[in-house]
Amino acid sequence: MNILNLDHISANQLLPEVQDAMVSAIRMGYGNPSSQHKMGEQGSEALEKARESVASLINCASPKEVVFTSGGTESVNHAVKGVALANTDKGKHLVTSNIEHNSVIRSMRRLKMMGYQVTSVPVDEHGRVNPDHVAKAIRDDTVLVSIMHANNEIGTIEPIEEIAQITREKKVTFHVDAVDSVGVLPIDVQKLGVDLLSFASNPFYGPTGVGGLYIRRGTSVWPLLEGGIQENNNRAGTENLIGIIGMGVAAELAKRDMKARLSQFKRLREKFLRELPNYIDEYIINGHPEYCLPNLVSISVKYIEGESVVLMVDDEDIEISTRSACASGSLRASHVLLSIGLEFAEAQGTLVITFGLENTEKDVVRFLTALKETVKTLRNLSPLYKKAHQTEH
Amino acid sequence: MNILNLDHISANQLLPEVQDAMVSAIRMGYGNPSSQHKMGEQGSEALEKARESVASLINCASPKEVVFTSGGTESVNHAVKGVALANTDKGKHLVTSNIEHNSVIRSMRRLKMMGYQVTSVPVDEHGRVNPDHVAKAIRDDTVLVSIMHANNEIGTIEPIEEIAQITREKKVTFHVDAVDSVGVLPIDVQKLGVDLLSFASNPFYGPTGVGGLYIRRGTSVWPLLEGGIQENNNRAGTENLIGIIGMGVAAELAKRDMKARLSQFKRLREKFLRELPNYIDEYIINGHPEYCLPNLVSISVKYIEGESVVLMVDDEDIEISTRSACASGSLRASHVLLSIGLEFAEAQGTLVITFGLENTEKDVVRFLTALKETVKTLRNLSPLYKKAHQTEH
Repeated sequence: MNILNLDHISANQLLPEVQDAMVSAIRMGYGNPSSQHKMGEQGSEALEKARESVASLINCASPKEVVFTSGGTESVNHAVKGVALANTDKGKHLVTSNIEHNSVIRSMRRLKMMGYQVTSVPVDEHGRVNPDHVAKAIRDDTVLVSIMHANNEIGTIEPIEEIAQITREKKVTFHVDAVDSVGVLPIDVQKLGVDLLSFASNPFYGPTGVGGLYIRRGTSVWPLLEGGIQENNNRAGTENLIGIIGMGVAAELAKRDMKARLSQFKRLREKFLRELPNYIDEYIINGHPEYCLPNLVSISVKYIEGESVVLMVDDEDIEISTRSACASGSLRASHVLLSIGLEFAEAQGTLVITFGLENTEKDVVRFLTALKETVKTLRNLSPLYKKAHQTEH
Repeated sequence: MNILNLDHISANQLLPEVQDAMVSAIRMGYGNPSSQHKMGEQGSEALEKARESVASLINCASPKEVVFTSGGTESVNHAVKGVALANTDKGKHLVTSNIEHNSVIRSMRRLKMMGYQVTSVPVDEHGRVNPDHVAKAIRDDTVLVSIMHANNEIGTIEPIEEIAQITREKKVTFHVDAVDSVGVLPIDVQKLGVDLLSFASNPFYGPTGVGGLYIRRGTSVWPLLEGGIQENNNRAGTENLIGIIGMGVAAELAKRDMKARLSQFKRLREKFLRELPNYIDEYIINGHPEYCLPNLVSISVKYIEGESVVLMVDDEDIEISTRSACASGSLRASHVLLSIGLEFAEAQGTLVITFGLENTEKDVVRFLTALKETVKTLRNLSPLYKKAHQTEH
């Protein structure tokens, strides 16, 4: 049977048009965009064309506000460390939330080792940040607020526009990790009112290892990578032009097809949630019922371990995950799931299902059928399940 | 006429085998190497295969000592900032040379803003660092020495092995920027005895925007990119797998063909230097006559501007450069050329010619012919030239 990918948050296959653009870039060969001769000019033109496509996807005031990076992680490190280090004269206090991606958490942990203080605001049971909590957390010495747009484990979308109103009023720089939103949902950096926004190409079917950082004009931030004068002096290093060309095409397609993709995802997600009770019982749906990624479902299945489900359905060529691929292999329970109030055991039983463009309603049924058998098998082996159900009798 | 690339230090076209490997990676599609299912495993296998090829090229003790990065600039920033920040308990003093690439210079300038002190040792008229100067510059609070392997503007190769003996004796971490050496010259990190070594894929005909950092096991360095647990926790972020696969193949070919390439470059370079006086006069050959990159010639042509030559020969589809592409567009004279004792005017008249695999002896003649005409035209317009030659009469 074909491999069924329901783990699109870990990896998306490149769209045919993206593949073709990258293959053509490889075959034709470009010069170094920084060189002054003709080959260099061709490279430079391809680079700026991609920048315009990406800037248009998130509605920048100018393409110059887009800095190409090696992916979401570089963008986040650039933003968080760069703003903190560039503003030490104003203070050394940072505000974030309890459910951020490890790139934000670890960047801030590093800054703490350098004398910074971090206030992390809680989220409610749906994983939403309360903007009032952010307002209260901001101090006179706060130099950065960093809150994610959509959570990569439970899909909850945060009230970014409301938080941006607060940060603008209090004149604090606001960074948003939008790695799992850009290209999936309509994102308008001007409407959101943020100062920096991190994103990556793969969530919208561009290549991995390529991303971008929106830096609103006038924002004070130190570059993470320094040396040459590339990217308007915002990010040194010869560009990954082949990857950037792929990202540009992926951005154009994402913008063009956004509506159709959203309704496809919505249909799949609704079918999944509607059918789920016909296949398994005793589970929790995580995340916010309304403010959520259209392509993600997080379910905590009681009395079993998510990792076992991943491996068992993989034997049937179905790919799902338990959490962020970046954190795979970690034995600790997800900080996101604990933050929304799950018990440790519930967190360990969590599955993350993410739909992609090639998925159909048949795929939903194929997965649910496999899930039913897997859950039955695992619960038959589960002392926790037996104990819970013995005591009921 | 075909475009004649004599600016290989700015950009190398991908070798056919490298192109094929990248195209095949694009077409087949890999999973996320961090994912736990089958697609992820395939990605992980491709990643580790590339790591072995790259580790073998520079003779690492273990492939785990290679961290994949987004290029030479990221590698250098990671090494310089990472070692400095990880060792503040030992001190805040750094040693480097006067002719480093801007990625080293600007990383250190940033660290100076954070309270570090930098000692920069001079070079001789050939651009060589004297190891004794490094030994004298090292203090009790020195935490890093960073010296480049081969200079990207004049080609001079530094006495890395001798310097490494000093740093090991004095127990100071030693980073080497070998971006223009790895894959061009035989590099053996164990024989050199260095702790960190930065390199990039494009100098040996792999893709741009992909590089590596050798970190000897046990070296204390903070990651530049933090978040997920990729690259043995040394560099977070989903990998640019397509680019890394290309780099792996390029590394295999570089190792296999190293000898043949070196003798080709040597032949071209020797022909160029032998013929040059038959075409132009009043020039200086920069760099060391013996310890130099086999594929680079730097010449300072008196009484003219290098930038004008670049643009004029570009009209005849010949690509050369005046300096590092990373610094193109800068109006200041090269710090490297001033450091070896050139006058400002001589520095401005400098051309950097870099040979590549597709170049032939005919190309040398084609360029020299064009150069002769160009120099003649420019000198006819040059007040400096007229003045110098009037006074002679």
